[in-house]
Amino acid sequence: MVASPIAVDGSTRIMGVIGDPIVQVMTPQTINPIFAARGANIVCVPLHIGARELDTAWAGLKAIRNLIGFGITLPHKQAALRLCDSLDPLAKQVGAVNVVRREADGSFRGYQFDGKGFVRGLKGQGHALSGRHCLMVGAGGAAIAIAFALAEEGAASLSIANRTPAKAEALAAAVNRAVGRSFARSGTAQPEPGQIIINATSLGLSASDPLPLAANLVDETMLVAEVIAKPEITPLLEAAGARGASIHSGIHMIRGQVDLIAAHMAEPQTET
Amino acid sequence: MVASPIAVDGSTRIMGVIGDPIVQVMTPQTINPIFAARGANIVCVPLHIGARELDTAWAGLKAIRNLIGFGITLPHKQAALRLCDSLDPLAKQVGAVNVVRREADGSFRGYQFDGKGFVRGLKGQGHALSGRHCLMVGAGGAAIAIAFALAEEGAASLSIANRTPAKAEALAAAVNRAVGRSFARSGTAQPEPGQIIINATSLGLSASDPLPLAANLVDETMLVAEVIAKPEITPLLEAAGARGASIHSGIHMIRGQVDLIAAHMAEPQTET
Repeated sequence: MVASPIAVDGSTRIMGVIGDPIVQVMTPQTINPIFAARGANIVCVPLHIGARELDTAWAGLKAIRNLIGFGITLPHKQAALRLCDSLDPLAKQVGAVNVVRREADGSFRGYQFDGKGFVRGLKGQGHALSGRHCLMVGAGGAAIAIAFALAEEGAASLSIANRTPAKAEALAAAVNRAVGRSFARSGTAQPEPGQIIINATSLGLSASDPLPLAANLVDETMLVAEVIAKPEITPLLEAAGARGASIHSGIHMIRGQVDLIAAHMAEPQTET
Repeated sequence: MVASPIAVDGSTRIMGVIGDPIVQVMTPQTINPIFAARGANIVCVPLHIGARELDTAWAGLKAIRNLIGFGITLPHKQAALRLCDSLDPLAKQVGAVNVVRREADGSFRGYQFDGKGFVRGLKGQGHALSGRHCLMVGAGGAAIAIAFALAEEGAASLSIANRTPAKAEALAAAVNRAVGRSFARSGTAQPEPGQIIINATSLGLSASDPLPLAANLVDETMLVAEVIAKPEITPLLEAAGARGASIHSGIHMIRGQVDLIAAHMAEPQTET
């Protein structure tokens, strides 16, 4: 996608992206060209907000009348649940918010696009999910959204490996309850042939992070997918690729949802 | 100036401009090309904040770590005095803040560039101030900054016409005290031949506003100057031009200070 010039003026409306750290976010550079192509005078900017300052910053964002909403990345996706004035049913089900929009009445409503984005990203790269067995490392944030989306998309099974197994068990139970079948279970980070392996932890954001699972367990029958978009190829993907596995960057999860989000954000008229 | 493309990414730092209304601000479109030309990854965006939400929004802005500061327009220039953690001596003297910068220690310090900007703008258009007699309508916000700057620049005299004369008297006294000469006085909006006439009120922002002074009192010996930049030619300037006076748009006050502000904002390293 060609970077479009942004001409910010007094009438420009603001979409934020909040997180800590923030430098890795890809939303501004992927969504701004879409706003420009739609002829929307909206600019998306990164807002570096730590967990301890979230409540104060949230109240401040609400007081900025030409702010139409914001994307949410780590570590705020769960905290946003209690701060939103209302929640879209999917955000409530997932228990995490990744987009907040200012509605026509001025309230902040929480939405969830991560799962849809991940699934759309895989399908856009030619990876069908129907009937596939999946292993996901991580049980928070994006992981929860992805678990629900994989179930809805018709994947055959999901094993969830988490540092704290109780969280994986709770997630598996919630997904199974929602889809009415025995789809997910808590397990170990032990891949099996033919699986789609998903890193849904933040391991890989920092070059010094350990790998989320042992790369020597990966083989060429597997597809290894990331939620991390920066670096576009994480150490896990590099190691998996070297072992002959198919790899799938986290960038596709962002690209898979960003046009949905752009349409969603540009839709309501906010007072300026 | 050619509009430069802005490529916002996760590392971009934010400069706001706060005000109510906000659509008229010209800072984003004038300062963003300067940041780009300097190679600074900074984007200036308008933030629409009303007076009643200022304290909440201010605390929120402080909690956004990659926000390097903000410009201030009506009606917040005085309220910012009590909200800033410290004040530059000129901002204190003027009693109004038009730029807030996050210092290396994280604190918000208030600065004042309006007067310098106005004077630089006039000089940039070939209008010397030394020895000139001036009439200014308005005694708040930008007016105060301009009064001090005119005195420092060697103007001969300043008559200040304000709806509330006590405010004009207080401003005249403060300026005279600061410069140690009888320079300013409170007066009526009655221009005299050869004067520089300055509208330093917000009258003219709205097409429905009354003129700040009777246009039929203006003649071709006078220079009529504005602080309002949008519309670039206000009804006052149009009427004054039609009567043969020289006219000077408020846009020059912005252009006169924006390169100073860009250098000032890009200077300190803020944590991101």
